[in-house]
Amino acid sequence: MAFRKFLPMFDRVLVERLAAETVTKGGIMLPEKSQGKVLQATVVAVGPGAVNKNGDLQPCSVKAGEKVLLPEFGGTKVILEDKDYFLFRDGDILGKYVD
Amino acid sequence: MAFRKFLPMFDRVLVERLAAETVTKGGIMLPEKSQGKVLQATVVAVGPGAVNKNGDLQPCSVKAGEKVLLPEFGGTKVILEDKDYFLFRDGDILGKYVD
Amino acid sequence: MAFRKFLPMFDRVLVERLAAETVTKGGIMLPEKSQGKVLQATVVAVGPGAVNKNGDLQPCSVKAGEKVLLPEFGGTKVILEDKDYFLFRDGDILGKYVD
Amino acid sequence: MAFRKFLPMFDRVLVERLAAETVTKGGIMLPEKSQGKVLQATVVAVGPGAVNKNGDLQPCSVKAGEKVLLPEFGGTKVILEDKDYFLFRDGDILGKYVD
Amino acid sequence: MAFRKFLPMFDRVLVERLAAETVTKGGIMLPEKSQGKVLQATVVAVGPGAVNKNGDLQPCSVKAGEKVLLPEFGGTKVILEDKDYFLFRDGDILGKYVD
Amino acid sequence: MAFRKFLPMFDRVLVERLAAETVTKGGIMLPEKSQGKVLQATVVAVGPGAVNKNGDLQPCSVKAGEKVLLPEFGGTKVILEDKDYFLFRDGDILGKYVD
Amino acid sequence: MAFRKFLPMFDRVLVERLAAETVTKGGIMLPEKSQGKVLQATVVAVGPGAVNKNGDLQPCSVKAGEKVLLPEFGGTKVILEDKDYFLFRDGDILGKYVD
Repeated sequence: MAFRKFLPMFDRVLVERLAAETVTKGGIMLPEKSQGKVLQATVVAVGPGAVNKNGDLQPCSVKAGEKVLLPEFGGTKVILEDKDYFLFRDGDILGKYVD
Repeated sequence: MAFRKFLPMFDRVLVERLAAETVTKGGIMLPEKSQGKVLQATVVAVGPGAVNKNGDLQPCSVKAGEKVLLPEFGGTKVILEDKDYFLFRDGDILGKYVD
Repeated sequence: MAFRKFLPMFDRVLVERLAAETVTKGGIMLPEKSQGKVLQATVVAVGPGAVNKNGDLQPCSVKAGEKVLLPEFGGTKVILEDKDYFLFRDGDILGKYVD
Repeated sequence: MAFRKFLPMFDRVLVERLAAETVTKGGIMLPEKSQGKVLQATVVAVGPGAVNKNGDLQPCSVKAGEKVLLPEFGGTKVILEDKDYFLFRDGDILGKYVD
Repeated sequence: MAFRKFLPMFDRVLVERLAAETVTKGGIMLPEKSQGKVLQATVVAVGPGAVNKNGDLQPCSVKAGEKVLLPEFGGTKVILEDKDYFLFRDGDILGKYVD
Repeated sequence: MAFRKFLPMFDRVLVERLAAETVTKGGIMLPEKSQGKVLQATVVAVGPGAVNKNGDLQPCSVKAGEKVLLPEFGGTKVILEDKDYFLFRDGDILGKYVD
Repeated sequence: MAFRKFLPMFDRVLVERLAAETVTKGGIMLPEKSQGKVLQATVVAVGPGAVNKNGDLQPCSVKAGEKVLLPEFGGTKVILEDKDYFLFRDGDILGKYVD
């Protein structure tokens, strides 16, 4: 399932980080520098999955549209049509938000 | 089994650390700094389990509600609705308290 | 098989170290500092065992009550009801004393 | 499938990087030094695939002619008929562009 | 097969090093310091063997009473009834002396 | 298939590097120091192949007489009848030149 | 197959290095210091072979009496009846000389 004509390979998942909070709960404007890295993201495309040692395909466990929690480190930045996206391995995604 | 709409992935277990003891047995108030990291915790959500090399699902060996003993190091902090939780791998949990 | 309501996970073994010798053979009192770490211990609880790569359970090879020889390093201290116990992996236990 | 009589081995993929952008969107000429490494490339030849632990052949998941996204690091430079090409492992290719 | 009530675990082998040569061939007394570590030893007890990844028991390839050649490094000292013994893994023993 | 009575073992491949170019395209003599290491080579002998974890023989994927591209690093020099040859693992050979 | 009552274990191979060349082709005597380590050797004894992951015995691929090429590094010195021999793993032997 590609996104903007880009299809991740194997068990890679393409995500878009949610916008950073620019205002604190109390309404105070946050300078960009102190806006931490956003760890919540939306899945925009997933690869076909990884092939395990017996040659069987292990599909990804997240789907496009799901909201997920990313690890603090890792991931590869990918710029598509001038926008930042990130590639993570399916196994590195910590969890997902369900309704 | 999600918790506050958050579902851990694979063999990750979401736990909440028990409150630190603020008073010694003898009744002396403990300053926050000297309250060690609490290693006892309650399981609040578990992932579906890890997929082993042959592609079979290996479910987690702890369940929500169980009281467990955490290792001193490791774990990932997750903030849900302004409260601190921690993600550990099922295999890193040292043991559980049973009645 | 739990001990004081604590059940080790997987192939972990809960042991209690034997008391250190405080008097030499010749009857001389040993200062605490020079009482080496005791490597003999009694097994008090064992986990269900480890799951091998094929998903089969590999039970622990020691049982509660057995006297074992611990490696010099490794192990995790666990305090249960104010007493020190130690968790070792079944595979790290060097040997056991049999009658 | 060879290219200029060169056939990559196993799961190696021979790619040709796309030409670097020499002019910014706004039309400003970019000095060579500030033209970053181009991560988009065209596949020109693929090896037969890797042999997995059971001895089965795992073919490459990209084909000649496909446009792919390369990781920032890694790859081996190969000069064929005075032109630069690069060898990557199939598993290191991040994704491909599909129409 | 235990020795002095001590049974090694898994694929560990309990050995007793042969006495160091204290006199050179030419009859010159060797000061203790220059008596190298003795690498020949007698097997006194062997564990049941290691369990391989498929869960099958792989028995040790040496037996009690055999004379073996130890590697220069490695091994764990074990004191039984005030005498020094050493534990080696079956796989680390270099070879054995046969009649 | 031996070469000068030398048969590589397992998945090792014996190669002879092509002669280094001593003259540039423009006809300028290259001093020896600046003649880079030649990465093209001819296969002169191949081992029987590697035994995979299931005990099956995995034959080499190159044959004697083929022209191959070597990685820049690695390889073991072997002198046979006063001439330099090199041993590489089959899996480390980057590709081969086909007609 | 033992040698001087010494039987290597598993996939270890006992070899005796050929005598170092003490005279150059041109007849010049080589001082001992500049006689490089001899990499050619004769196999004097081989172990039964290694046990692979499935518990099957993988016999050694060299036999006693064969002339082999040793890697430059590695190997364990073994002194038998005051003579130097060396133990190598079967898999580390680079190749053998065949008639």
